[in-house]
Amino acid sequence: MEELKKRVCRWIESQEQSAVTLLQQVVQERSIQGEEASAQAIILEKCRQLGLAIDLWEPSKKLMESHPHFFTVRNHFKNSPNIVALLKGCGNGKSIILNGHIDVVPEGDLEQWEHDPYKAEIEDGKVYGRGTTDMKGGNIAMLMAIEAIKENDIKLKGDIIFQSVIEEESGGAGTLAAILRGYKADGAIIPEPTNMKIFTKQQGSMWFRLKVKGKAAHGGTKYEGVSAIEKSITVIEQLKQLEKIRNDRIKDPLYKNTPIPIPINVGKISGGTWPSSVADLVILEGRCGIAPNEDILEAKKEVEKFLNTLGETDGWFKENPVDLEWFGARWLPNEMSSDHELVTLLKKEYKALQGEEAVIEASPWGTDGGLLSKAGGVPTVVFGPGETKVAHFPNEYIEIKKMIDTAKIMACLLIEWCGAVD
Amino acid sequence: MEELKKRVCRWIESQEQSAVTLLQQVVQERSIQGEEASAQAIILEKCRQLGLAIDLWEPSKKLMESHPHFFTVRNHFKNSPNIVALLKGCGNGKSIILNGHIDVVPEGDLEQWEHDPYKAEIEDGKVYGRGTTDMKGGNIAMLMAIEAIKENDIKLKGDIIFQSVIEEESGGAGTLAAILRGYKADGAIIPEPTNMKIFTKQQGSMWFRLKVKGKAAHGGTKYEGVSAIEKSITVIEQLKQLEKIRNDRIKDPLYKNTPIPIPINVGKISGGTWPSSVADLVILEGRCGIAPNEDILEAKKEVEKFLNTLGETDGWFKENPVDLEWFGARWLPNEMSSDHELVTLLKKEYKALQGEEAVIEASPWGTDGGLLSKAGGVPTVVFGPGETKVAHFPNEYIEIKKMIDTAKIMACLLIEWCGAVD
Repeated sequence: MEELKKRVCRWIESQEQSAVTLLQQVVQERSIQGEEASAQAIILEKCRQLGLAIDLWEPSKKLMESHPHFFTVRNHFKNSPNIVALLKGCGNGKSIILNGHIDVVPEGDLEQWEHDPYKAEIEDGKVYGRGTTDMKGGNIAMLMAIEAIKENDIKLKGDIIFQSVIEEESGGAGTLAAILRGYKADGAIIPEPTNMKIFTKQQGSMWFRLKVKGKAAHGGTKYEGVSAIEKSITVIEQLKQLEKIRNDRIKDPLYKNTPIPIPINVGKISGGTWPSSVADLVILEGRCGIAPNEDILEAKKEVEKFLNTLGETDGWFKENPVDLEWFGARWLPNEMSSDHELVTLLKKEYKALQGEEAVIEASPWGTDGGLLSKAGGVPTVVFGPGETKVAHFPNEYIEIKKMIDTAKIMACLLIEWCGAVD
Repeated sequence: MEELKKRVCRWIESQEQSAVTLLQQVVQERSIQGEEASAQAIILEKCRQLGLAIDLWEPSKKLMESHPHFFTVRNHFKNSPNIVALLKGCGNGKSIILNGHIDVVPEGDLEQWEHDPYKAEIEDGKVYGRGTTDMKGGNIAMLMAIEAIKENDIKLKGDIIFQSVIEEESGGAGTLAAILRGYKADGAIIPEPTNMKIFTKQQGSMWFRLKVKGKAAHGGTKYEGVSAIEKSITVIEQLKQLEKIRNDRIKDPLYKNTPIPIPINVGKISGGTWPSSVADLVILEGRCGIAPNEDILEAKKEVEKFLNTLGETDGWFKENPVDLEWFGARWLPNEMSSDHELVTLLKKEYKALQGEEAVIEASPWGTDGGLLSKAGGVPTVVFGPGETKVAHFPNEYIEIKKMIDTAKIMACLLIEWCGAVD
């Protein structure tokens, strides 16, 4: 087994140039929401070359829309195909899903980019461009790992189910579609940008919109009205108290260095229409973090209930309760035990190849891992070569060495997890 | 003298129908900002019929723009003429300015009007329409008073300077233009809607815009940022303290029943661009009331200074001071001593005709009286037939009886103030 691992690692090292070329090709396709097809075409062709059994389909909104965890702003997924590519095992081994998203967030202000976000230029061992870190570099690492196994004639017992999905950045409809299509496995890895740390837990989140009411009046006689701006201060203070209560409950040592493991962030405020008038409406929009082990519906109920107590200390809210709406995207949290065999193996392979202990952490953001584990029942760990700090930012890049190292760790892990036929 | 007064009052009563017709004509012209000319044409023709010496001109932005109290959003005043019409006295009498604005605020949502805002329909002794109360009814009362004097062959010693000005609703450029054209008098009356109370003082106001800075971060790690929304709460609390300090100073018995004589109202708030991000900028817009005896520049300085102390309790503001901008319209405050002869006479004539004591009050809003007194040096009192509560609102109206009663009181006052030749 150790001999096999050495062989695949050597092979992966030798293929660095072709891996980088593949990454560049896929980064050069601007696969923002709704425009994923040309990038998927490159992935598809690679899967075909690898001889994988390919399932290519456009997710159906109709099939998903009754699912409690479905969210999208789209009317349809036409021209936005999902890909699942199967390397069938010989049997009697554990199966694994390798899941990565092909969609990227828009590049934003071009002025802030030092490299063209879609040229995939190389400098100092890094490939620059939108989606390099989040998460096309991770996807290429997975494909390299699979290719190494194929090219070195290693027969695995368990199945490898490679998934290149759409929509992760916008609510996860791509992964949900794969779950509902029936893809399951004994475990899953998502190579989102963790900087090669092992993220066994992810904070989930959901967006809320609050309508805080007031009573209009002329500013010169403001005492005749009730300012929705002042009332919204009360609401924000109440949310702060709730944040404290929710975070005080978290005893997980993984969060011991995190000031606020699951923050409630009011990110947007707008209200009032005229400087000389008392505002009669303020709208607050924000994000409520969800703990890895928390049920999203329970979390919603807790927020709702806590906001309803506003009327106990301020009669205004009794007569004029705050309107609460859950809107926009939400990301399910995810947790996997650090004792799970997939994590144990990942740690082992990491140490063997990197020469040091892997760092286990919890992420402050969600991934499709929440869907895989909570909706799909597949224990999921997040481990990838990109860096959180450049995801969604200008000058996004990936270090080529980390992509290669991740591919090696993954290939070794696959051999251990799925089991190799002697 | 008393005989003269009785005569003019009888005459005014007999002219109710023609006064109402004139009011209807002028209300039927929609004299919103920039479209005052057709309403002014009606006023002009009336002044011509009365044999007054007419000065008709379009205010010059150039002549005004260096004036510290000039404000406009307009590029020019073409087709927006001011009218000043003089009834020259024989000499040795006190002069008076009778000032009213011809501009009206837009009618707003038509759905909320029960009468067409520009038909000037009569129902139950009221004329309905935009501008009836604010303040065309008051203007017609002034013209009736002048007409009564002319038609009854009364020769006054002092001059009557009738002014029909533009732009009161948008910063007072019309009245400022008249001041800069040299019109002065020993006193002035503005028949803004006081419901026939005597407003010797008016709250002034000025608009401010505050930019409160934060530091952006992802909502999931909000502790890495600084929320401009939370910082704006601190700023709002600071403004509340300042409001208390400013209002605690006011000992004027006229304000004894007013909870907050000169409020600071934050009427608009907006900030943040994304629910999941920590907001790095919040913009607050509001109105700061100015006391009748206060200097507007001193008030500005006080606000500025107080906001600068934010850094003493919160280091963030030391590094990131709040940006303060005075923008948009401002209305100068006004005060006139209750012992001033113009007020004494007005009270006397009010009591003689209404059979009860006049109510003296301070208004929570400014008028062109601030400009007349502070920029023009003319002691000004506000007294008119309209009702504050319907000004700027749908279903604005004026009671015909109050317009007629006001005309009578004004005519008697003019006889007393300017002095009649035997």
